[in-house]
Amino acid sequence: MIERAKIRLFVDESLREGQTIPLERDKAHYLFGVMRQAVGDRVALFNGRDGEWTAEVTLAGKRNGVLTCLGQAAPQLDPPDLWLMFAPIKKARTDFIVEKAAEMGASRIVPVLTEFTNSERVRVDRLQAHAVEAAEQCGGTFVPEVAEPEKLDRLLDGWDGARRLMFCDEALAGENKPLSGAAGAPWAILIGPEGGFSDAERKRLHGMESAVSVSLGPRILRADTAAVAAMTLWQSALGDW
Amino acid sequence: MIERAKIRLFVDESLREGQTIPLERDKAHYLFGVMRQAVGDRVALFNGRDGEWTAEVTLAGKRNGVLTCLGQAAPQLDPPDLWLMFAPIKKARTDFIVEKAAEMGASRIVPVLTEFTNSERVRVDRLQAHAVEAAEQCGGTFVPEVAEPEKLDRLLDGWDGARRLMFCDEALAGENKPLSGAAGAPWAILIGPEGGFSDAERKRLHGMESAVSVSLGPRILRADTAAVAAMTLWQSALGDW
Repeated sequence: MIERAKIRLFVDESLREGQTIPLERDKAHYLFGVMRQAVGDRVALFNGRDGEWTAEVTLAGKRNGVLTCLGQAAPQLDPPDLWLMFAPIKKARTDFIVEKAAEMGASRIVPVLTEFTNSERVRVDRLQAHAVEAAEQCGGTFVPEVAEPEKLDRLLDGWDGARRLMFCDEALAGENKPLSGAAGAPWAILIGPEGGFSDAERKRLHGMESAVSVSLGPRILRADTAAVAAMTLWQSALGDW
Repeated sequence: MIERAKIRLFVDESLREGQTIPLERDKAHYLFGVMRQAVGDRVALFNGRDGEWTAEVTLAGKRNGVLTCLGQAAPQLDPPDLWLMFAPIKKARTDFIVEKAAEMGASRIVPVLTEFTNSERVRVDRLQAHAVEAAEQCGGTFVPEVAEPEKLDRLLDGWDGARRLMFCDEALAGENKPLSGAAGAPWAILIGPEGGFSDAERKRLHGMESAVSVSLGPRILRADTAAVAAMTLWQSALGDW
């Protein structure tokens, strides 16, 4: 395969040899203005489906440009079927959670409104852009979809019992049983808000047959730390690490 | 034990029943100005040695104040003997790493200068203040010490062979062997800079008898994500989770 380029861009187009990718204003500005690329320089492209391709700058203007695909540089790497569900918190921390989910290999990011969720305003388009940026930076070829926020109760009402739920319970102490399950089975991780889950929510989650409670240690973790820790436990036991 | 208070402060003084803690200007402003506490309100105190104590505000001035210890609310919880060593990166990300180390239960935080470390300016006092703040927020009773930055080569020259080294190698692919070792044995986790380790550094680390190489999955993690992921693997296998 062709050598991988350092600058990475997510694009919508299909990627194949000779395919040309027109660049609109923002990307042209970034590539030619900020990153000082010129005709003949190489850029890595991915679209979430076709792996990573190395492309050459074939036109570099101030407000537009064209890239031409040379060859595939890395195969498509899809993450396991793992959702990260979390209660939105302060803006910067929510951004971090989305970034971490993309880096750690979640397939879908679901903002969940719980009883104690403080921040109910979630701009899905902004978070989706963050997921794209994180995938560009971490060398991934997949971008997790950021779902519309949903209330926890409604989400659990329609829960598909085949999807196991790893419920990170900050009230739980003691050692975890090793996570186990069939290879490739669908899972979701649920991280609570800063105030934790309500008693009613906790009771409902503990009563679900598909749910597994997991402790994240004797210290209270911030939600973004908890998200990385939970995804680490899952990926190292059942995922693609 | 007495009920735990929500507002938590790290102090230097020894904590015992009836002990009075004078507050200087900054803490008085935070407690009485920002957090609107008054005489009779309760605050949690810890000093890294005596567990958590509940104290009462007995004097609340504009520029000073006094807290009086009522009783112990939680025992001292020391983390395992785990160092987190990392190559400093951009300021905000370095702050995050220190915060995460305190939350996840590292006992010592060591900034390490590697061949590819970009940022060599580390303000230890500022990072130490961050570690205190993180301990206040995460309900911990211990504050990890932030060490002076040291060059990796010099650190390895004087390495104590009894301390195992978990070396997070981004060039490593494939499954990890389970981490194992004697309970309570000293360990250190080493996280590289964004550019990774140099070939010479990697060779030296692979050649160390006390070192164990660990993969953090097929995607490239940012240093702050890698720090949480590595501490999760260690804490869940050998630590206090």
